[in-house]
Amino acid sequence: MSTAWTSRYAQRTKNVKSSAIRELLKLTQQPEVISFAGGLPAPDVFPIQRFQDACAKVLSMRGKEALQYGASEGYQPLREMIARHTSRYGIKAGPENVLITSGSQQALDLIGKLLINPGDRVLVEAPTYLGALQAFNVYGAEYVSVPSDDDGIQTEHLEGPLRSGPKFMYILPNFQNPGGTTLCEGRREELVLLADRFGIPIVEDDPYGQLRYEGEHLTPLVVLDRVNLRRDNGYSIGNVIYLSTFSKTLAPGLRLGWIVAPADVISKMVQLKQGGDLHTSTFTQMVAYEVAHDNFMDEHIKMIRRVYGERRDAMLAALEEYFPPEVSWTRPAGGLFLWVTLPEGMDCQKVFEAAIKQNVAFVPGDSFYANNGAESRRHFRLNFSYVPPEQIREGVRRLALAVKNQLEGILPTVRQR
Amino acid sequence: MSTAWTSRYAQRTKNVKSSAIRELLKLTQQPEVISFAGGLPAPDVFPIQRFQDACAKVLSMRGKEALQYGASEGYQPLREMIARHTSRYGIKAGPENVLITSGSQQALDLIGKLLINPGDRVLVEAPTYLGALQAFNVYGAEYVSVPSDDDGIQTEHLEGPLRSGPKFMYILPNFQNPGGTTLCEGRREELVLLADRFGIPIVEDDPYGQLRYEGEHLTPLVVLDRVNLRRDNGYSIGNVIYLSTFSKTLAPGLRLGWIVAPADVISKMVQLKQGGDLHTSTFTQMVAYEVAHDNFMDEHIKMIRRVYGERRDAMLAALEEYFPPEVSWTRPAGGLFLWVTLPEGMDCQKVFEAAIKQNVAFVPGDSFYANNGAESRRHFRLNFSYVPPEQIREGVRRLALAVKNQLEGILPTVRQR
Repeated sequence: MSTAWTSRYAQRTKNVKSSAIRELLKLTQQPEVISFAGGLPAPDVFPIQRFQDACAKVLSMRGKEALQYGASEGYQPLREMIARHTSRYGIKAGPENVLITSGSQQALDLIGKLLINPGDRVLVEAPTYLGALQAFNVYGAEYVSVPSDDDGIQTEHLEGPLRSGPKFMYILPNFQNPGGTTLCEGRREELVLLADRFGIPIVEDDPYGQLRYEGEHLTPLVVLDRVNLRRDNGYSIGNVIYLSTFSKTLAPGLRLGWIVAPADVISKMVQLKQGGDLHTSTFTQMVAYEVAHDNFMDEHIKMIRRVYGERRDAMLAALEEYFPPEVSWTRPAGGLFLWVTLPEGMDCQKVFEAAIKQNVAFVPGDSFYANNGAESRRHFRLNFSYVPPEQIREGVRRLALAVKNQLEGILPTVRQR
Repeated sequence: MSTAWTSRYAQRTKNVKSSAIRELLKLTQQPEVISFAGGLPAPDVFPIQRFQDACAKVLSMRGKEALQYGASEGYQPLREMIARHTSRYGIKAGPENVLITSGSQQALDLIGKLLINPGDRVLVEAPTYLGALQAFNVYGAEYVSVPSDDDGIQTEHLEGPLRSGPKFMYILPNFQNPGGTTLCEGRREELVLLADRFGIPIVEDDPYGQLRYEGEHLTPLVVLDRVNLRRDNGYSIGNVIYLSTFSKTLAPGLRLGWIVAPADVISKMVQLKQGGDLHTSTFTQMVAYEVAHDNFMDEHIKMIRRVYGERRDAMLAALEEYFPPEVSWTRPAGGLFLWVTLPEGMDCQKVFEAAIKQNVAFVPGDSFYANNGAESRRHFRLNFSYVPPEQIREGVRRLALAVKNQLEGILPTVRQR
């Protein structure tokens, strides 16, 4: 039943499409489907026993506090722990620089609320995280897309777009979603210099930074920024809003993320969070603190790296074995995703339909483009964190059948070139 | 430190003031202060042992599900339970009519996101819940205020404001925050008829409805609406969006609220929730379900009614005993608050300052008016759920000193009349 007023009053949703990923996830929840579609952590890595102990401790020792209203800023010991942890990478952040959010997705929403007025432009990578587009669309964002390659966003193409005056740049520097690519060191430095020169802030979204399976950790933009700006007090964060989350390292079911930013930005965000959901669950914050403290995370993340690194290797090996030579893919040094590129003329949607018939799923690439043209239909995203190695191999085998099947349709064209 | 861009990009926060209540709460957290300021449940009523058992059960039996991503709509068994519970009051709602939110505050935010474009008017009671004003302000809402008395919003004054074309009416029919008043039966019927006649939806915010200490439960607007509209299928909800929460009956630290609305409204809200925080914590939803099912809530709410009813009585008795005859107050049949009216010429802010010196706190009334004039400074809100009865008596005694002290300054004026 549709009521008269709901259609009349629905203008605000005009920019809002249901997330392709989430709708697909419903389609692919049958047990016979091998799904590379979601961005789900492997449930086997959840430290359930430690959660048991943490819940028991929090409720028995501080139950009245855990179940009561809390501060919009977040649970103070958790803010302090995150500030300490962030400082390890060279950011001198205090708890006043940290806001706890209901997952990173809420951080993106608060950024949209604070910064985007209808018609404002946001500079994004092409491709970029579709959840960010979803969050920003509601506030009437428009986009200027800058292409990326295996070394991340192509900073040599940034000046023109920056001259067009975007409100901010939205960048995923580590093991990007969906690309799986990492912004190289030289481009990081160029990016923060450009941000400073044009006075355009950077939103640095870093959910996967700790999940590196090879090579060295690269300096976050927020750290380079501080160094380059050489602010008087030397302890402040300047031009970068940094986001991260417990979703990929602890458990997404908690809905716990955080923003690290200059204290005056945090204080505005706190006001918006008050109006948005008052505060994030006191209980989950206290439990997460109890689980994460005592350096538990260091060992835990090592374990996750081992498990996901194996799965990445399994997927890369299977792609090498089963996929036709016309198809290429990225080789991520970390994170959860890799990005497949089909030959010109192929359409990821058709491959998707063929794949579903083979009981294997992925996310078609066009969802990840702010301004999508024909190019966007040549890609798709594969997740390698959720499915165990032996199923990864079987899934890629099935997927290769779907790809080859579609490839045959356009093969004369491809082979001609 | 203020960065150049944060001041440049902050226009969106122009309507956003930090909640007076939350700032005051910080001021009044010293142990020597008796605080009637917050809207906090008594921590003694939290069923901590049952939470212990629920956490242990959820984690041991379904830990992998509890810690994983979930559906934006909410945990299905919880939606079904809420639909069943809602149906007890005569609303034939199914789970497709229920969206789980991160507290009722997020429900208000989603309503603002869906319905309010800058400059749109919202019809509110005077006074009204300040958290709703905070949520709607961000979207550029303007307000048309309709006065209320002991029987709730004065429906005889509604036609003019409705002709001015507000987007929706925001109404708290039961034990209103801050007034403590309840919308009487006749006005409920008039309200839904007017809503139908003008095609203006009602947002019915009902966090306290179950906390009634005397008299009979009154029919919710959402039920009257269904009956009056006599829709063909007879099972749908029409003109009313109904909100409630576990915050006052189970624990606010969970951040669990819900929206009951027509399925097409819910489906739009789900899209907005996806972009806003993806979904509410799977873990807290499963724990709340485990705590609340098996009709535990019925007995639990009976206990809360007994405890809070006693505290209300203690506050009413103390006000009678200590307060001067020039001051009046409401006598709520339920909920957490009562509303004090000072004689003309008195200023609640000055009383507040005097009260703080006596180590007792409340929320000045002007925060609760969308359009506040001199009238708004003659009131303040007292909470009676948080402080135990013996402290209520002592707090009211101190408060009376502050009131009398300020009253003396204007006494000649008052006594003259």
